[in-house]
Amino acid sequence: MASELERLRAQVARLEQELVEAKEKKDPTPTRSKIEKMSAEVKDTNPYSRLMALKRMGIVNDYEKIRDFTVAVVGIGGVGSVATEMLTRCGIGRLLLFDYDKVELANMNRLFFTPDQAGLSKVEAAKRTLENINPDVEFEVHNYNITTVVNFESFSERLVHGGKGGLPVDLVLSCVDNFEARMTINTACNELKINWMESGVSENAVSGHIQLIKPGQTACFACAPPLVVASNIDEKTLKRDGVCAASLPTTMAVVAGLLVQNTLKYLLGFGSVSHYVGYNAMQDFFPSMSMKPNPGCSDANCQKRQTEYQELEAAKPKEVSEEKKEEKIVHESNDWGICVVDEDNPVEDNPDVAEGIKVAYTIPDKNETKDQGDEVTVEDDQSLDDLMKQMKSL
Amino acid sequence: MASELERLRAQVARLEQELVEAKEKKDPTPTRSKIEKMSAEVKDTNPYSRLMALKRMGIVNDYEKIRDFTVAVVGIGGVGSVATEMLTRCGIGRLLLFDYDKVELANMNRLFFTPDQAGLSKVEAAKRTLENINPDVEFEVHNYNITTVVNFESFSERLVHGGKGGLPVDLVLSCVDNFEARMTINTACNELKINWMESGVSENAVSGHIQLIKPGQTACFACAPPLVVASNIDEKTLKRDGVCAASLPTTMAVVAGLLVQNTLKYLLGFGSVSHYVGYNAMQDFFPSMSMKPNPGCSDANCQKRQTEYQELEAAKPKEVSEEKKEEKIVHESNDWGICVVDEDNPVEDNPDVAEGIKVAYTIPDKNETKDQGDEVTVEDDQSLDDLMKQMKSL
Repeated sequence: MASELERLRAQVARLEQELVEAKEKKDPTPTRSKIEKMSAEVKDTNPYSRLMALKRMGIVNDYEKIRDFTVAVVGIGGVGSVATEMLTRCGIGRLLLFDYDKVELANMNRLFFTPDQAGLSKVEAAKRTLENINPDVEFEVHNYNITTVVNFESFSERLVHGGKGGLPVDLVLSCVDNFEARMTINTACNELKINWMESGVSENAVSGHIQLIKPGQTACFACAPPLVVASNIDEKTLKRDGVCAASLPTTMAVVAGLLVQNTLKYLLGFGSVSHYVGYNAMQDFFPSMSMKPNPGCSDANCQKRQTEYQELEAAKPKEVSEEKKEEKIVHESNDWGICVVDEDNPVEDNPDVAEGIKVAYTIPDKNETKDQGDEVTVEDDQSLDDLMKQMKSL
Repeated sequence: MASELERLRAQVARLEQELVEAKEKKDPTPTRSKIEKMSAEVKDTNPYSRLMALKRMGIVNDYEKIRDFTVAVVGIGGVGSVATEMLTRCGIGRLLLFDYDKVELANMNRLFFTPDQAGLSKVEAAKRTLENINPDVEFEVHNYNITTVVNFESFSERLVHGGKGGLPVDLVLSCVDNFEARMTINTACNELKINWMESGVSENAVSGHIQLIKPGQTACFACAPPLVVASNIDEKTLKRDGVCAASLPTTMAVVAGLLVQNTLKYLLGFGSVSHYVGYNAMQDFFPSMSMKPNPGCSDANCQKRQTEYQELEAAKPKEVSEEKKEEKIVHESNDWGICVVDEDNPVEDNPDVAEGIKVAYTIPDKNETKDQGDEVTVEDDQSLDDLMKQMKSL
């Protein structure tokens, strides 16, 4: 009888322990082990067959190279979370995630996060989901605000050493929802000479954009800052109690799709990487353009990168620079305070242009921005006025 | 001692039962209860605050109406699964899902399904995930192939009676990957007079499209069938062993985003619903157009709906028909076997045009297809040749 009591007590203890473990196991155990080498074999159990098929289809030369790349994603919200999921499923080598927010039920109108994750930090919740989806990807998460002085130092350090083998990251994706964070990323990338892509969705949820920023080569975020930034207005003062921005999972996913598609094109070298693509959901209209850096940019590192780039371009063999076609220069006065800079005759003294926000807009040159594949563009006949109209409608 | 034994035995039995339940509970319990009425209140626990904000932003008049609508989604793959998730998060009233496939690890390069769902039917796996995301949505799933005779009857019956209150569904979304299923949906929708949207992604993963089909009013799938369909080739014979189509989560999400965005515009009456939007990922190029139904369409029900629509239009008050602007008619010979039909002088005898695939293409009329919001189009100067070039590049 005593031994029976002993046995039952031990069984109760064991069962209680098992029950705790069973209840604690909130995340399903990863159901596949790591895959050493990507295979193109067509079978139901190969998670990479549809991606490796891009090679046979003549789209990508060497898809496996994706494992060598590291991408940092700042802002794991409506756009950023979906972007990280896309990169994870594509088998990117390493992902660095930065955010300081928590998941809330109010985020459930966009893709990715689930109600049971409410209360978790976004980067932790995202890491758990993504590791389960693809255990081949390396994740590094940072649950902090990059705009504070201390965190900015850590952020910069990770951009320089957070890539594969301690090298710099290959690309930074900005998926944040405020100008302060965008300016922070801009400052870091100009200083560290790291290419990045900016993304954004409007407060009314029905438009968005992506933009590629190569320090010194294309306009940076400070070259043509939004009015709020240029006017030194603290955007926090613009928020009102009881009012929130609208958002739609559709717009967010389209913007994330365009962002990661261009990331794949950039990393794997296929198609043409867009400098700017807008999305106007009301009309299904997608403006595109290229923007040159502003010689009078307020960011000293941007000016430094511009000089470096110009020197690099000048040092290139003559035949390359001859290939550059004459650019169509369009200049009309407009109520945006924006002028088109004629490179031979910069209109430095144009009184219409406010100090510090001089911008060079050029109409996309087919041979420059659409340099691969068949030529199909509809921008040829666009005037600057058209572009302005399009931008205002965003 | 005996009572202690009794107690321990009961405890063991209870713990064993609890353990079985804990282990069986693969899905997390829905962490929020149903919400009776959508609220615009801005608080972290309100999953609809960002959607209801569309009203304050002046985009949607009455967002709550979304609960009255039912959408049927056919094909729960790379596009369909993401489309159902978007609709679920937007709080759609009812969703009908049709698919007969199982989840495989080979699907993990696209969004939505997770490795632990491998082996489950796609519709069942989707239902579990979606119910957890939003318990306010009603789901009805059908794990069968709609193209067989028996299933086609059930499919048609559900389209007619599967909506809220036993009414017809409000829209059908085609997210299938083969022509046979598209033709099946087309046949059903022409017969039942139900509007639907077609979607597709190319085999090389870098282009896609969406298209709105209103029986009798816009071209149906049989009006301008793909060559494989028009030639009566069994597409199954085109598949080769060891070869699969490429696919990317980016392209799939962009197409799903455009599809559901246009679904929201169609159901809630905002923006302009596109007749056709293409997506060329290599160039970030998005062709758009409108296609009139083919008077010689091989589907008798399409012809019937055309007659009905024309009679309806003719019966409208004069001032409305006067509003219709004169259409620019462009007709050039092309190697696609497609001609532009001048409505007053149909080119019925054009020797270039193969029997049964006569199609009427019109250049989008700004006042017809872009009837709300600011006018921003770039299609004005496109010729039919341009459109052909764009289509070929897809």
